[in-house]
Amino acid sequence: VSRLSPALEAELRAALGDDGLSLDEHDLAHYGTDRCRGGWPVAPAAVARPRNVTAVQAVVRACARAAVPIVPSGGRTGLAGGATATAGELVLSLERMRRILEVDAIAGWLRCEAGATVQAVRDAAAAVELLYPIDFASKGSAQIGGSIATNAGGVNVLRYGMTRQWVMGLRVVLASGEILDVGGPLVKNNTGYDLRQLFVGSEGTLGVVVEAVLALTRPPAGRIVALAGTSDEAAIVRLFARVRASGLVCSAFECFDAASVRHVLAHRGQTGRGPLAAAAQHVLVEFELAHEDQGEAALERLTDLFAAAETDGDVADVAVARTPAQQTALWAWREEISESLHGRDPHKADVALPISVVPDFVRRWRAALEEHLPEVEAVCFGHIGDGNLHLNLLRPAAWPLDRFVARCAEFDESVYALVEELGGSISAEHGIGLLKRAHVHHTRSAVDLEVMRRVKHALDPSGLFNPGKLFPPPPPRVPGA
Amino acid sequence: VSRLSPALEAELRAALGDDGLSLDEHDLAHYGTDRCRGGWPVAPAAVARPRNVTAVQAVVRACARAAVPIVPSGGRTGLAGGATATAGELVLSLERMRRILEVDAIAGWLRCEAGATVQAVRDAAAAVELLYPIDFASKGSAQIGGSIATNAGGVNVLRYGMTRQWVMGLRVVLASGEILDVGGPLVKNNTGYDLRQLFVGSEGTLGVVVEAVLALTRPPAGRIVALAGTSDEAAIVRLFARVRASGLVCSAFECFDAASVRHVLAHRGQTGRGPLAAAAQHVLVEFELAHEDQGEAALERLTDLFAAAETDGDVADVAVARTPAQQTALWAWREEISESLHGRDPHKADVALPISVVPDFVRRWRAALEEHLPEVEAVCFGHIGDGNLHLNLLRPAAWPLDRFVARCAEFDESVYALVEELGGSISAEHGIGLLKRAHVHHTRSAVDLEVMRRVKHALDPSGLFNPGKLFPPPPPRVPGA
Repeated sequence: VSRLSPALEAELRAALGDDGLSLDEHDLAHYGTDRCRGGWPVAPAAVARPRNVTAVQAVVRACARAAVPIVPSGGRTGLAGGATATAGELVLSLERMRRILEVDAIAGWLRCEAGATVQAVRDAAAAVELLYPIDFASKGSAQIGGSIATNAGGVNVLRYGMTRQWVMGLRVVLASGEILDVGGPLVKNNTGYDLRQLFVGSEGTLGVVVEAVLALTRPPAGRIVALAGTSDEAAIVRLFARVRASGLVCSAFECFDAASVRHVLAHRGQTGRGPLAAAAQHVLVEFELAHEDQGEAALERLTDLFAAAETDGDVADVAVARTPAQQTALWAWREEISESLHGRDPHKADVALPISVVPDFVRRWRAALEEHLPEVEAVCFGHIGDGNLHLNLLRPAAWPLDRFVARCAEFDESVYALVEELGGSISAEHGIGLLKRAHVHHTRSAVDLEVMRRVKHALDPSGLFNPGKLFPPPPPRVPGA
Repeated sequence: VSRLSPALEAELRAALGDDGLSLDEHDLAHYGTDRCRGGWPVAPAAVARPRNVTAVQAVVRACARAAVPIVPSGGRTGLAGGATATAGELVLSLERMRRILEVDAIAGWLRCEAGATVQAVRDAAAAVELLYPIDFASKGSAQIGGSIATNAGGVNVLRYGMTRQWVMGLRVVLASGEILDVGGPLVKNNTGYDLRQLFVGSEGTLGVVVEAVLALTRPPAGRIVALAGTSDEAAIVRLFARVRASGLVCSAFECFDAASVRHVLAHRGQTGRGPLAAAAQHVLVEFELAHEDQGEAALERLTDLFAAAETDGDVADVAVARTPAQQTALWAWREEISESLHGRDPHKADVALPISVVPDFVRRWRAALEEHLPEVEAVCFGHIGDGNLHLNLLRPAAWPLDRFVARCAEFDESVYALVEELGGSISAEHGIGLLKRAHVHHTRSAVDLEVMRRVKHALDPSGLFNPGKLFPPPPPRVPGA
């Protein structure tokens, strides 16, 4: 296990207080990794939990002087290893800095510390009848700082965009220990480079986000939720075009396959059938109402839309929720999929494609699976309205984990090559972290990566923050060279 | 006049064709400046008008080798001198690269060359019943490349945001002559730094935008336009809070004062009164309808809103347009202000403030005017829903222009100090260019500017692109030092 020098340890204790620095091995294991298990060592040297910005600055300055790298750490709900400390880094947890600092209900924004959970921000917005619309499964644990570092997406991206769209301002501690304030509550401010968006999605490699100003919006007055059965992805894409043209405000357009339904049923311990008996593919659609009195007109419009889709053979069966309880029940089929797969060590790919090529992609992906991994069961679901599919491969009971992981990694390379060929992204919302850094060239060009490297060097010349993440690994050394 | 070396001239002619390079003095004067007259010399060495990306790359490489800086040039409708060539630069005009390359009506985006006008993009979107929602007065001349370089705003920012929000992808020629593709039609792509937003608003200092992928949206089914008379800015802000809380989709919330109305009347050659006889302040509000059948309900809601505002004394008088012609007539009061001031050599400040402090700002600005420039007439109008005011000072007939400009520049410094004190921005939408570079420290901190400098150096180490723009000028040399 790596160790801090006595001098650095003393300096950190002075800055953080005794309870703000931990070398305890349970803490190291707990804070040293996120939800991604990629086989890397988990080996931080220490965990720092500052209570304020001044302490963050002191930690950054001390580590910079001692050349001990820092892994910024939020709720560690990431799925790409971006918050994993593998080689004696200091983990800098923001969890004690979680105050909501200011809420402006008229202008529609709030300011908070980076350690506030996404749910806490949503609650603070709801308390003044506003909405922070970023919503994803781990929102109760995920922290705002981490959601900004990873540009978190979720179930309402179609309507509200990614986290990027809601970040108005950031306070960042730079590698020099200086504070950088970028943006703020102003709607308009055309005074030079947008450094704010550079930090959003930078996976902790450019600085430590310590505070954020987030935009809020008015929540919808009501919702309509419907589930439609379709035959294949091509029918789903045609249905999406109808929805786009309808003028209805669509807030979610999600898909899941028959395998997803089987696993949810099994996980619930239910026998019998899914929500739409014979459907090969399911589309869950949610619409927003600006006023409660629009419900009837919107339902009528939706009924017409589905009727036309049925006539054209694109939709076989439809269930429209009539009550909030029914809405929750329909959503549950989509929301419980991930958990229902958990026991099967799913290997995940989180890809995005132009929606028009999704049918072609899925067809070729299934054919490649059939050819190269016929023993492996696949489950496909996702945010298809955004072109975002979550592809899950399940470990065959007879295969040991390492064999399964190795075979999947091999298969990934062909999936990502196909994604590149079709103009997609190898990471729609999970980021790159350690997990996908060897594959990033499929989505970012050599020139693009070189500019990213230069930006990294401009902001963090000594490589203090989150080393090894996001950028492709160096090529293997040639023996004898 | 500065000159190209014969070798560089020959190289550029080979890349551009004979009609693609001009040394003609009328062309130099025409292409060498934008709409801002700040007293700088207009002295480019040449004007290059490439027809394709390959030619842009050749020009950039040739100029880099010869150490001749490049001023990227769009429609030159800017108001901050950002496209002015003052010292022998090569002006690189994109006006011959104006094709709409691809439109995807289902996914909702288009791809175009940078020289396409904003209006041409709006027309191409309208041809497939979609909307490119960036709308400002000079859209018929302004080019997409320039609108991206300046992050253009306009009259619908409240509803649709700035240009930044609609840029999905960019093709950029870097200082090395290499092509950088960032982003694209994908809705989701979490694979590293958002370099795209770094170029948006960078005023041509980081590279030459040659192509863009722009998001499109569905146009509203209808509009409601109303004009309300109020007593002061505090009443306007209270009215804004009512509008925000109403659930109506507000697409514009503009203000103008009684002086604005007087100048529009005079410019029209009309005698008599403005649209609302006795109002000190006017608020023009536009609402969008998602469906035509919502018109009646929305009008009812709006009537209730104004009635409540009248009861509370915030609104004195209201005109609601009943026909499209009436809508146009109400908008004309707002749209004609700038032109009506033209003959008075208006000195403009384009400031943004948190909307809650706008009343305080305007009160203190008017008091400072009364104290320091009592001879000068002031006109205030703008996008108050965004906190964005356009402050115009008019030259007294008896003052020569240079005296007026000098006195206004002196006064600007106190205005910008007040903007800083109240947490505002010295440039809401016009940018920095040459005009405001000495004032940028009022909005961006020293650390912020240092990071901007490092990013500039990372992308353009030899300072090839648009030198002297955006960054504060070097401090004056101390004699004898």
